[in-house]
Amino acid sequence: MDARPIGVFDSGVGGLTVVSQMRRMLPGESIVYFGDLARLPYGSKSKQSIIQFSHQIMRFLLGQDVKAVIIACGTASSNSLEEMRASYSIPIMGVVEPGAHAAANKTRNKRIGVIGTEATVSSGAYGQLLAGLDPEIQVFSKACPLFVPLVEEGWFDDGVTREVIHRYLIPLKEEGVDTLILGCTHYPLLRGLIQEEMGEQVTLVDPSQEAALLMKSFLISHQRLAENAEGSVRFYASDSTEKFQRLAEVILDSPMMPVKRIAIENY
Amino acid sequence: MDARPIGVFDSGVGGLTVVSQMRRMLPGESIVYFGDLARLPYGSKSKQSIIQFSHQIMRFLLGQDVKAVIIACGTASSNSLEEMRASYSIPIMGVVEPGAHAAANKTRNKRIGVIGTEATVSSGAYGQLLAGLDPEIQVFSKACPLFVPLVEEGWFDDGVTREVIHRYLIPLKEEGVDTLILGCTHYPLLRGLIQEEMGEQVTLVDPSQEAALLMKSFLISHQRLAENAEGSVRFYASDSTEKFQRLAEVILDSPMMPVKRIAIENY
Repeated sequence: MDARPIGVFDSGVGGLTVVSQMRRMLPGESIVYFGDLARLPYGSKSKQSIIQFSHQIMRFLLGQDVKAVIIACGTASSNSLEEMRASYSIPIMGVVEPGAHAAANKTRNKRIGVIGTEATVSSGAYGQLLAGLDPEIQVFSKACPLFVPLVEEGWFDDGVTREVIHRYLIPLKEEGVDTLILGCTHYPLLRGLIQEEMGEQVTLVDPSQEAALLMKSFLISHQRLAENAEGSVRFYASDSTEKFQRLAEVILDSPMMPVKRIAIENY
Repeated sequence: MDARPIGVFDSGVGGLTVVSQMRRMLPGESIVYFGDLARLPYGSKSKQSIIQFSHQIMRFLLGQDVKAVIIACGTASSNSLEEMRASYSIPIMGVVEPGAHAAANKTRNKRIGVIGTEATVSSGAYGQLLAGLDPEIQVFSKACPLFVPLVEEGWFDDGVTREVIHRYLIPLKEEGVDTLILGCTHYPLLRGLIQEEMGEQVTLVDPSQEAALLMKSFLISHQRLAENAEGSVRFYASDSTEKFQRLAEVILDSPMMPVKRIAIENY
């Protein structure tokens, strides 16, 4: 048993989809969440910058005495996970590995689609992992840079959003993928429309959910569950904005706790 | 005469529309450009963060011995110009004042529209300035957060872009504005479609162009033109990305010079 909290970080609000899954699957765990609002989004930044940001956030979270960390951001998981694991001794999980494992298990025709930010797609992280898991798997990927701003506008059931989804996904549909990885934590909020576009026969994989599951089995197998009656969540961010508050309430489906602002560039 | 360069900064690539205008109007001036790629976009950040970022960039530019600075970013001009002027002794211009002056001169029915990022619109900067210039002017503003990612996707002549423009601008059209300020440096790249939506009778004001004009008259009236045969442009940025290179070549309509990466958080 280990009562210390789990650290979760993301460039912004998207990682709260992981928190939401963890609250459901691991209600006894406490969570320290960090959102890098001052520097979001990561999707258009270089690998070098993403690694630097991740180091600063890891140092902040270690100061909060976390027992493990989930990098709940597809872009940071694809670009900085290896470097973080080499630098810090606590267990660190990304969303890419659990997402890739789940997709490899679910595909029948070995044709898997990956959608994500430009940085996630250009990192090739999903493709490398999937090739390692099964060399017969073919990966087709597509960057969808308009999905995040559409989600942030709240245009969920909307003609423009449908048309953008159609345009981005049509090449993957034409390749006949039977499994599609939602490689950015914002995308599960468009799940219904994406499923509609791809058709019911295509399996959608939500790496947030798979990451929460993986954390759960890790804690059980290492006997490090917190076993609190009720875990707490503390929110930290590098900027304070109303938008974060508003979107967080949608994602967590509950009134938001106060968010403490941290000068992350000093870590 | 003053041969020192002029500093121009923006959160990213948008401020290059100001550089492009300056090259045309002031070919003898040298320019030092800084794009804050590691922290872009500013449009969704808090005033406090935008002021902090602006201070760091001003300190960097002063180290480059600039004679004057243009804050070529609607969001930073609206949120940090006053503070920068109070802190540094060189002349500092934003894009908001020249944009507001031009709009006040052009309007006939005293109904002016302003479009920009969320931070520009919520700052109320255009409204305050226009009210000071003419208390009879009524200002109608609308944040258009999808315009920047649409420009960055390069979807210039496109059905989705048309529909998003229609949806954002219809309330301003209904208010009967006769002048519309393009309050974000990316928006002039959508000028044709915006003009089509608003109709030919509406005058579009491009603050980038007005800022370059204002700098020109300042330099002439203070006898501080560089009078070089040909000015140079040096590019600095807080991150290095292919996207910057690609968009810069579109905006400046010439092959891009090398960009030097600066660790701006250390300034």
